[in-house]
Amino acid sequence: MTDTPDNNTTAVGQLALRRIGIDTYRENVAYLHRQCAVYRAEGFQALAKVEVLAGDGRRVIAVLNVVDDESLVAPEQLGLSEEAFNSLGLEPGAAVGVRHAEPPASMEAVRRKIEGERLNATELLGIVRDIAEHRYAKMEIAAFLVASGQTGLDRDEVMNLTRAMVAQGERLRWQRELVADKHCVGGIPGNRTSMLVVPIVAAHGLLMPKTSSRAITSPAGTADTMEVLAQVEMPPARLREIVDAENGALIWGGTANLAPVDDILISVERPLGLDYPGQMVASILSKKISAGSTHLVIDIPVGPSAKVRHMRDALALRKLFEYVGDCLGLFVQVVVTDGRQPVGRGIGPVLEARDVMQVLRNEPEAPADLRQKALRLAGRVLEFDPDVRGGDGFDIARDILDSGRALAKMQRLIEAQGAQADPPQPGALVREVPAPADGTVIAIDNYQVARIARMAGAPMDKGAGVDLLKKLGDKVTAGEPLYRVHASFPADFRFACALVEQDSGYRLGGADEVPQLFAEF
Amino acid sequence: MTDTPDNNTTAVGQLALRRIGIDTYRENVAYLHRQCAVYRAEGFQALAKVEVLAGDGRRVIAVLNVVDDESLVAPEQLGLSEEAFNSLGLEPGAAVGVRHAEPPASMEAVRRKIEGERLNATELLGIVRDIAEHRYAKMEIAAFLVASGQTGLDRDEVMNLTRAMVAQGERLRWQRELVADKHCVGGIPGNRTSMLVVPIVAAHGLLMPKTSSRAITSPAGTADTMEVLAQVEMPPARLREIVDAENGALIWGGTANLAPVDDILISVERPLGLDYPGQMVASILSKKISAGSTHLVIDIPVGPSAKVRHMRDALALRKLFEYVGDCLGLFVQVVVTDGRQPVGRGIGPVLEARDVMQVLRNEPEAPADLRQKALRLAGRVLEFDPDVRGGDGFDIARDILDSGRALAKMQRLIEAQGAQADPPQPGALVREVPAPADGTVIAIDNYQVARIARMAGAPMDKGAGVDLLKKLGDKVTAGEPLYRVHASFPADFRFACALVEQDSGYRLGGADEVPQLFAEF
Repeated sequence: MTDTPDNNTTAVGQLALRRIGIDTYRENVAYLHRQCAVYRAEGFQALAKVEVLAGDGRRVIAVLNVVDDESLVAPEQLGLSEEAFNSLGLEPGAAVGVRHAEPPASMEAVRRKIEGERLNATELLGIVRDIAEHRYAKMEIAAFLVASGQTGLDRDEVMNLTRAMVAQGERLRWQRELVADKHCVGGIPGNRTSMLVVPIVAAHGLLMPKTSSRAITSPAGTADTMEVLAQVEMPPARLREIVDAENGALIWGGTANLAPVDDILISVERPLGLDYPGQMVASILSKKISAGSTHLVIDIPVGPSAKVRHMRDALALRKLFEYVGDCLGLFVQVVVTDGRQPVGRGIGPVLEARDVMQVLRNEPEAPADLRQKALRLAGRVLEFDPDVRGGDGFDIARDILDSGRALAKMQRLIEAQGAQADPPQPGALVREVPAPADGTVIAIDNYQVARIARMAGAPMDKGAGVDLLKKLGDKVTAGEPLYRVHASFPADFRFACALVEQDSGYRLGGADEVPQLFAEF
Repeated sequence: MTDTPDNNTTAVGQLALRRIGIDTYRENVAYLHRQCAVYRAEGFQALAKVEVLAGDGRRVIAVLNVVDDESLVAPEQLGLSEEAFNSLGLEPGAAVGVRHAEPPASMEAVRRKIEGERLNATELLGIVRDIAEHRYAKMEIAAFLVASGQTGLDRDEVMNLTRAMVAQGERLRWQRELVADKHCVGGIPGNRTSMLVVPIVAAHGLLMPKTSSRAITSPAGTADTMEVLAQVEMPPARLREIVDAENGALIWGGTANLAPVDDILISVERPLGLDYPGQMVASILSKKISAGSTHLVIDIPVGPSAKVRHMRDALALRKLFEYVGDCLGLFVQVVVTDGRQPVGRGIGPVLEARDVMQVLRNEPEAPADLRQKALRLAGRVLEFDPDVRGGDGFDIARDILDSGRALAKMQRLIEAQGAQADPPQPGALVREVPAPADGTVIAIDNYQVARIARMAGAPMDKGAGVDLLKKLGDKVTAGEPLYRVHASFPADFRFACALVEQDSGYRLGGADEVPQLFAEF
């Protein structure tokens, strides 16, 4: 029961377009002067949604801000924030009209979801299309997400949501039958396996053009860490050249406009702390299908401070990944992994890149857990190759790594993407965090060490982070360092040290208290 | 499971405050130049929440917009939108700091509500306080509202929410034991009974200082309609003088800062079309308690196109009003009324004011239904007076109206508030909507006629609206006018006429098809 009488109005008056140098991120904003005749006649309210129309039919939806300052927008002008101006694609001074934006028709479906009903493919497509066209305010997106999470999305709803998200963006096509990919559902710091799996798989000859994200709430994403070594932002055409030459790449996926609705949903889910399985599966699979992947290994770490804490949840998630993947023509293999503690030693872009290169170079101090996990995942990817016998993947991967072919491939990828002339170093402000007593490390809180690394400045400050010196099961004596905090800026350093004082993230105990892998199940 | 590492940071650097002439309504916006050292050091993201701090501890929470235009904000300045600037209360150029706003602590409680749990008084107070302090983004408010609506708020949650909303605003105090009020839950166009009840009750001698809202989604609120005749915006001190002299007033409540969180919640509920009983009760009762009322008549119209469609829903709502009112010391009487069609003839401020004055002047063409309903409600209010015998209220109200004392009181109220020198007239563009056939009016869709009146320009254009010539049960012949549309501006007029073509809102049928009052129950 709502009363939305503002449908069906048409543009009134013509205004001169002005570019306003304000970056409002994913929210388009239009600026009208309070004395603007159109504003007065139409009875727009500040923060109302308006539609700005060009003569050629181009249009953009924006939130209205009312301006009292003529130097910003004159009464006969209409201002648009940076992204909105760019997306309309007109020159300053172009004649535009403005009218009330019609409330998105698909909000009716959102209301049905709020009432607990099931949505069909058409309804989900309508919602996703309206979100893609910026017709939803963030609060409307929040309503959809919370309602979907509370009521739950069944597996066909997840599949239809995924399909709709793919349909609203670009899709990379690789002219190859087998395009491999891997993805981790997240939550484990230091888990930089992609930077090992891609060179191994590409060296073997399978296509693996990996588009990664930057960190959103974690101390580093694969794109942030790769950027320590090489450029990661490039147009799709350049990506294609690199992949044609090298069978792989490790780049930031943001330039390719893949499933852009996913980014919009994430921009609401993260601040609200929403983390529902259905939305996670739709998010990951829509990005992978859009990136042109045909075969995908999904890594689900399970552990007491991981995103997935129980094996039963991992199994339910696996079924959902498999179902949606099968429906949409993406072959999915799920691997459940050890999520009891961070992977490797470094947490933060520079420190993680160091770990990766140590493994590639087969250095003796290379973190064994990172190497083992990467080989296991690479092996599963290699087994997508019809010429590889089931069970042989791990050994092939190990051979590629041990022989130096993975390192050589990584060096060619770095060269092709553009090596960093002056790679950043670990932050010079260092604090060693000592063990408070003798004992054995029996728990490392993934969230807390990630939070400390973030507070120290990662990922914006690439050299900031945490370097773990002790891992689960290691014996320590009182005063022996557990890990080091690295930062570049004094303020960050202070904040991170204060957080360490509150809770180091480590727990010590008896040797018999170390939790066994998947012991709880 | 969320990862919010940005707590506990403190202000960095000092910037010069600048007032930015942009009205962002209820959303504070801060503007920083992209080259601003603080922006770069802190790694703020566009649309992040920041806290702006003055040296004396004053602070304001705002959403960040990043600016590339030095004429708007220089790198060493921090701009604030109008409302944010005013609420900080400093002079331009004052030194301010800025830091990441801590995520509101009460979001943990919102997440518990999303999980379907019950919230206690402390948690609800925390949520309401953080909303009052602008710590919530609209999407966070939407998450709270949708989660509350889906899971439901039990009656103690509604009570605690109401109490918290009262605690976050001003509270008027009248030094009288009995402060009467009335309120309708809404949804019925033309329902301007308050403008009759207040003069009747005030003429009788009871205190009835009525603070009303303007229309949000309807064609007119009581404040809009009263404004046709008199000023309705005044400071609380002037309101008090008028009430002391006249026992009553009919003003806009927006200047008094009563339960301001209610307005913030409404600004999210309306666009989302959320309309949950618990939130409605908290909204209405928090405003009334804040306005200092001790005795309240609630009007719940029931009908097929009313907000409440079934008697069982009206009864459940009555219990909830009574429970929360009793807990918070407000005596509530609920009256269920006829919501089958609009009340009176006029819909829109000028036309409704005309109806009211016709009733007050006892003119023969005065709409009988408006008169009867107002007398019934006024009678119930009068019976709050311990000196009035139960059952006598209606007759006393009728005597006051018939004798002209209500008219005289209204004229004094108009005089005291400030009569409009040049009252607006009905819009000069008029279309009569004819009956398509012979028959009897068997339905009038409250929503559709309200929508037509809105489209014609009401309430911004006070003369715009709909004037009903036929009501339920009236016999009509083909071509005879059912109602008139009034508008002042050609564009509005065209839109309204187009809407009439789609659906006139009237249905004709046989005389035996007129729905009986509460027939469905």
